[in-house]
Amino acid sequence: MAEFQESETLRMEAFSDGVFAIDITLLTFQLKAPSLKDATSTHTLAMALLHQWPNYIAYFVSFTTIFIIWLNHHRMYNVIRYSDVRFMFYNGMLLLLVSIVPFTTSLLADYINTPGHQLSAAIYMLLFACISGTLFRMWTYATKDYRLLKRPAADVRVQTVRTSLIISASIYTIVAGLSFLIPFLSILVGLVMVVYLSRLKYHRGKVV
Amino acid sequence: MAEFQESETLRMEAFSDGVFAIDITLLTFQLKAPSLKDATSTHTLAMALLHQWPNYIAYFVSFTTIFIIWLNHHRMYNVIRYSDVRFMFYNGMLLLLVSIVPFTTSLLADYINTPGHQLSAAIYMLLFACISGTLFRMWTYATKDYRLLKRPAADVRVQTVRTSLIISASIYTIVAGLSFLIPFLSILVGLVMVVYLSRLKYHRGKVV
Amino acid sequence: MAEFQESETLRMEAFSDGVFAIDITLLTFQLKAPSLKDATSTHTLAMALLHQWPNYIAYFVSFTTIFIIWLNHHRMYNVIRYSDVRFMFYNGMLLLLVSIVPFTTSLLADYINTPGHQLSAAIYMLLFACISGTLFRMWTYATKDYRLLKRPAADVRVQTVRTSLIISASIYTIVAGLSFLIPFLSILVGLVMVVYLSRLKYHRGKVV
Amino acid sequence: MAEFQESETLRMEAFSDGVFAIDITLLTFQLKAPSLKDATSTHTLAMALLHQWPNYIAYFVSFTTIFIIWLNHHRMYNVIRYSDVRFMFYNGMLLLLVSIVPFTTSLLADYINTPGHQLSAAIYMLLFACISGTLFRMWTYATKDYRLLKRPAADVRVQTVRTSLIISASIYTIVAGLSFLIPFLSILVGLVMVVYLSRLKYHRGKVV
Repeated sequence: MAEFQESETLRMEAFSDGVFAIDITLLTFQLKAPSLKDATSTHTLAMALLHQWPNYIAYFVSFTTIFIIWLNHHRMYNVIRYSDVRFMFYNGMLLLLVSIVPFTTSLLADYINTPGHQLSAAIYMLLFACISGTLFRMWTYATKDYRLLKRPAADVRVQTVRTSLIISASIYTIVAGLSFLIPFLSILVGLVMVVYLSRLKYHRGKVV
Repeated sequence: MAEFQESETLRMEAFSDGVFAIDITLLTFQLKAPSLKDATSTHTLAMALLHQWPNYIAYFVSFTTIFIIWLNHHRMYNVIRYSDVRFMFYNGMLLLLVSIVPFTTSLLADYINTPGHQLSAAIYMLLFACISGTLFRMWTYATKDYRLLKRPAADVRVQTVRTSLIISASIYTIVAGLSFLIPFLSILVGLVMVVYLSRLKYHRGKVV
Repeated sequence: MAEFQESETLRMEAFSDGVFAIDITLLTFQLKAPSLKDATSTHTLAMALLHQWPNYIAYFVSFTTIFIIWLNHHRMYNVIRYSDVRFMFYNGMLLLLVSIVPFTTSLLADYINTPGHQLSAAIYMLLFACISGTLFRMWTYATKDYRLLKRPAADVRVQTVRTSLIISASIYTIVAGLSFLIPFLSILVGLVMVVYLSRLKYHRGKVV
Repeated sequence: MAEFQESETLRMEAFSDGVFAIDITLLTFQLKAPSLKDATSTHTLAMALLHQWPNYIAYFVSFTTIFIIWLNHHRMYNVIRYSDVRFMFYNGMLLLLVSIVPFTTSLLADYINTPGHQLSAAIYMLLFACISGTLFRMWTYATKDYRLLKRPAADVRVQTVRTSLIISASIYTIVAGLSFLIPFLSILVGLVMVVYLSRLKYHRGKVV
């Protein structure tokens, strides 16, 4: 279980960035021009567009959430110096999960108006729970005995971040369950979590 | 509201570049081979291809506009040294808006020949207005008290850029309204704005 | 057959990384929300989602395999200093083959439940055989007389990697043949090979 | 018409690389699993796959051609130091044209078996002619009075490259015309041109 060079860490980060950027952009496929007959009036088109509101909401929640996950991924890598095989696999798992977000997003949008909305919202939340859990696992592994951390950054807010990530994973899981009782809770909590996750500080000092 | 490191700014810029590059390439999905029966003659195919002219125009306007927005985004980051949480969120909002361009482009192309063209053109212009407005907001925020600027580049053409961006946002908004009166105005103005926005100078000196 | 600068090698690597990142993300198109009527119950949706299991498995195997190929590609480039025209073409061929993975993946998933599963599994394995073979060819070419290697890294585990890559290519080929006899063997072996290929060491020392 | 910084040139190159990498990967959408009924035999599937041969050929020609264009783009940027507004627009035009390749590729593949193959092959070749022409225009502009070249690389093979690029553009144009007379000539010449364009040397010395 030898360690990677620092340059290897940079490369893994660049590769991850690419995957994040593509995933966040593929969400666009969620938004499609409605297919109407030629003789469309402005009014008909406006109605058709408004009728697509679940797609807009799902797009917004997913876009902001992936953005925030990317931000946390970066802040984490900011204080990490080394990488070993196991950490690399955790990272691969994170990318695999993030790549599924466009799928659960379209599931959420397609079924939000049907009785199937409960299940689709639960799956949507559950994926975010897994992603938060993976971030938590990465952070716990990297910070144990300061294993993979940069020396000058050793004095990081390890415990706070750890707690926040496990809280995030728990909230997503709980809301996944509550989705069967309270409609739209998942969307609301999704937005709140974006704000919450944007505030985690991995690094002491002025740098966020 | 602590500040980001300079390296964080570079990373955000690289991530934004990725999103811009993917968005500009996804416009290609606008162009599809017409689906005709097997026994197509050269003449039938030529007619079918010519019939798709709205897609070519919409593709061209959107491609050049995203290219120009990317260029302005870069020129802006060229004179910016620091980044804080709020600036990062403005940037995230810009990426979200730019990612919607493929959607409004296909809306424009699909309805340009129908009575719905007014609304689709208005939405198309309105999105560009929002994008210009976000660039204006970013620039205003970054330059207030030279907050986020590089010291050696402090003597930038702050006011000119600010004015130009607010003018751009206003023109796009006005043309969005006029779309209901004058057909194809949005496409014409879209092309003019590409030229206009390509000329903004964020930096004094020989560097554009 | 002049040699490339070291910077040229870096650039080829960055370009390859981009293609890898896009290919791995395009696998997502494998996962689609099932299209059901509006009056879907949670139960119907759950059944429809479970019914898509071949897509999930194919997605998982392909994602992890591309990830591992990318990793091997990187480890190889880690010990390579120069690049010539022929090596560059081998690399282009690798990218071409990797870009076909989303196609064979959807072939595997679409036909896994039909009598055509034998052929689709064979093609799936055969592509991985070609990819391993290309990696083997690249490595053999690069290491002959230490042609393209970094001097300080000359003492690499050349022979072990060579053997492992030719073994991988052989196993994939054999399993491609066996796919006509034993169903699901290809998926099982695909997963085993991910673990096997993740363990190749191109470099002596602590660096993996 | 002020000049860009060298860093601006690097950034434009990175952005172009991203667009090239995405375009070359989007060609994959050309390859789709055939949609057959459930009760498919191995034989039926094999037939259906073989029936898609135009897609494989078109995929191969387009992939290798974009790869070679990317290579030439890079070799050109290797000897360029500065960039001005006009050169940047030529580059933007190149990206716009390259982004259309997936469209003409699917046009070629869809109509190769129909009487419309003449027109689709002509358009396919014509786009490559425009791309070569744009590369020629970029090179001519950059090398006039050594305008944008790196000083140490001033002694480049300016004239040879110029001639080769104009020859390429001419051949593509001529073959576009001949497509109406000789079927499949475009595919054959497309492959020959890949070899031809891979051999251009922008730089004296060992570097290709």
